[in-house]
Amino acid sequence: MPGAQDFTAALSERSRWVDELLLDPNTLGRIRPEHLRRLVASYLERGGKRLRPAVLMLSCGAVGGNERDVIPAAAALELFHTWTLMHDDIIDHDSLRRGGPTGHILGAELAARDWELKYPEAADYGISLSILAGDVQHGLCVAMFLGARNVPPELLVHLVDDLERNVVADLVEGETLDIQFGKQPISEVSIQDVLRMMYLKTGVLYQFAGKAGAMLGLQTTDEQDPLVQAIATFCAECGTAFQLQDDLLGVVGDQEKLGKPVGSDILEGKRTPVLLEAFRVADTQTRRRLETIVGNPRATPEQVRQAVDLLADLGALDAVARMAKQHIDKAFASLEKVAPSQYTRWLAGWANFMVEREF
Amino acid sequence: MPGAQDFTAALSERSRWVDELLLDPNTLGRIRPEHLRRLVASYLERGGKRLRPAVLMLSCGAVGGNERDVIPAAAALELFHTWTLMHDDIIDHDSLRRGGPTGHILGAELAARDWELKYPEAADYGISLSILAGDVQHGLCVAMFLGARNVPPELLVHLVDDLERNVVADLVEGETLDIQFGKQPISEVSIQDVLRMMYLKTGVLYQFAGKAGAMLGLQTTDEQDPLVQAIATFCAECGTAFQLQDDLLGVVGDQEKLGKPVGSDILEGKRTPVLLEAFRVADTQTRRRLETIVGNPRATPEQVRQAVDLLADLGALDAVARMAKQHIDKAFASLEKVAPSQYTRWLAGWANFMVEREF
Repeated sequence: MPGAQDFTAALSERSRWVDELLLDPNTLGRIRPEHLRRLVASYLERGGKRLRPAVLMLSCGAVGGNERDVIPAAAALELFHTWTLMHDDIIDHDSLRRGGPTGHILGAELAARDWELKYPEAADYGISLSILAGDVQHGLCVAMFLGARNVPPELLVHLVDDLERNVVADLVEGETLDIQFGKQPISEVSIQDVLRMMYLKTGVLYQFAGKAGAMLGLQTTDEQDPLVQAIATFCAECGTAFQLQDDLLGVVGDQEKLGKPVGSDILEGKRTPVLLEAFRVADTQTRRRLETIVGNPRATPEQVRQAVDLLADLGALDAVARMAKQHIDKAFASLEKVAPSQYTRWLAGWANFMVEREF
Repeated sequence: MPGAQDFTAALSERSRWVDELLLDPNTLGRIRPEHLRRLVASYLERGGKRLRPAVLMLSCGAVGGNERDVIPAAAALELFHTWTLMHDDIIDHDSLRRGGPTGHILGAELAARDWELKYPEAADYGISLSILAGDVQHGLCVAMFLGARNVPPELLVHLVDDLERNVVADLVEGETLDIQFGKQPISEVSIQDVLRMMYLKTGVLYQFAGKAGAMLGLQTTDEQDPLVQAIATFCAECGTAFQLQDDLLGVVGDQEKLGKPVGSDILEGKRTPVLLEAFRVADTQTRRRLETIVGNPRATPEQVRQAVDLLADLGALDAVARMAKQHIDKAFASLEKVAPSQYTRWLAGWANFMVEREF
């Protein structure tokens, strides 16, 4: 697709700008004690695509703003993303993140190395430390955002209020719903429920990145400004499309590129749009067959493959791919309201980048 | 002591002002889903003395500022305190807070009630929910602080930057050190280490309350202003004195007033100033005797009583009481630099209130 390659060049340039600030020893290096510093820095030092910062900066540029001035606000969104990952990884009992141990696992390793603690004490220490590391990142996020240059302080106050009052509450609501859905029978969760949950977990922060970038670029506190609205909608729709794509990859993606086993979402019993769409159209017998595999930790790899085939046969994969396409189309329609420039081309490239990741 | 009774009247008036905002259904009532709302509201709805908000407001009044304008900033500090309690209660495996279940216990109860989850699934859900509830409170804290009225936005930006960059990092460092000290041999931890840890865990937030109140009252971003410095020092010293007093109460306090068994700090093996002072002056034989009891979950109530007697005989209780008195004296010396008024009398009353709590 056009633009995606172009975008990756713009992305890597911006991720260098952001990393200069994010990885500045004067910020992370001052965290004490050492174990805590290690955890706070860990995810950030392992890279990551810095997509949210790029979206904020490109949105700023797209309305004529100075990208360099908003680097601190952009970097803040990476910190925001990072603290939510740190806490989510505890909640999801995940052990790998960006090619290294998750925060609580790293904390447990440090306790074992330095104090010869064993399970469960070491695990407990790791969880405590990663709760606290996320809290430090959350605080740094707010402080960093407030450091944007040449921005009227009223606008900083407006945006940080929005981020901390609304975006935090939405994102945490999404995370809570994600946990709760997993505990409910598949038949009681609708695709709409899950799409809303995905919007809360991912779309809201991208929407904020676009909105904040545009408002900073225009130096306005007017959320109803048509340019602000156009870019915010573009980002929100891209976020949803990205989540749907992610869902597809979780079912049929390449194990190596994805970093987790094919069908792991099925094994975990995640209430994904693909699964819910399959349940919606399946007959009773097929539903029962799926139910014996989905969320069953004792399901064999062969059974998981059978479930994937069933999802394909039921047309659920195609249906979700179509939904992703619809959201991307909506996104592009919204982006057309912004005067075309190198920045809008990059933003379009981002949208394509998000949905063109290979299976 | 003079002033403490006077202070409690001023405190209850201010806690009403703060609670109007804190418990406003438009704030807490909007949190979704319901389980999360319950946890976010729980500690706040159970009362609490609202000491930090009162200190901010009285400090504002003491430099001639309008207390009513800073109610949102004052309420924000209660939210700040609350999110740290919510996360600390997970870390410390505490089950009671302000006469009700801690966040993770309440979450587990909700999971058991609504979904018939059992241990360990219910406990796991409770921990997840209370991590997220603390995160929502943290976000609301920032947003609420930014809502202070008639304050130059530059000053709000300055204070929230300080709160989120420095106070969060200090407080979390203190919490981490508290965990780490518990894993180290008593002989490797010094009183100075523990006093610094206490300052980070408690003193820093009181210091910020005083400093922010004074800066808001004076409408200045100058941290070096002598009035700001005087009030900040007063509050920091009071915070340390309060912690020392708390330490004494943890050893010899009244079970009912304290809400936890006498000697529970001894049973848990907490590295408290009383314990470290006792170790400092004890001979080898007495140290060994203490070591068999301190942090030994199988120690009998009779053994714990013996340990308390030992701490008294070694003069550790008196020594820590003298330290508390010294910090209070320093606090009062600093307060004298502020022009006397009803507000400085109330602040003095707060200091006395903090150290006059009965054994």
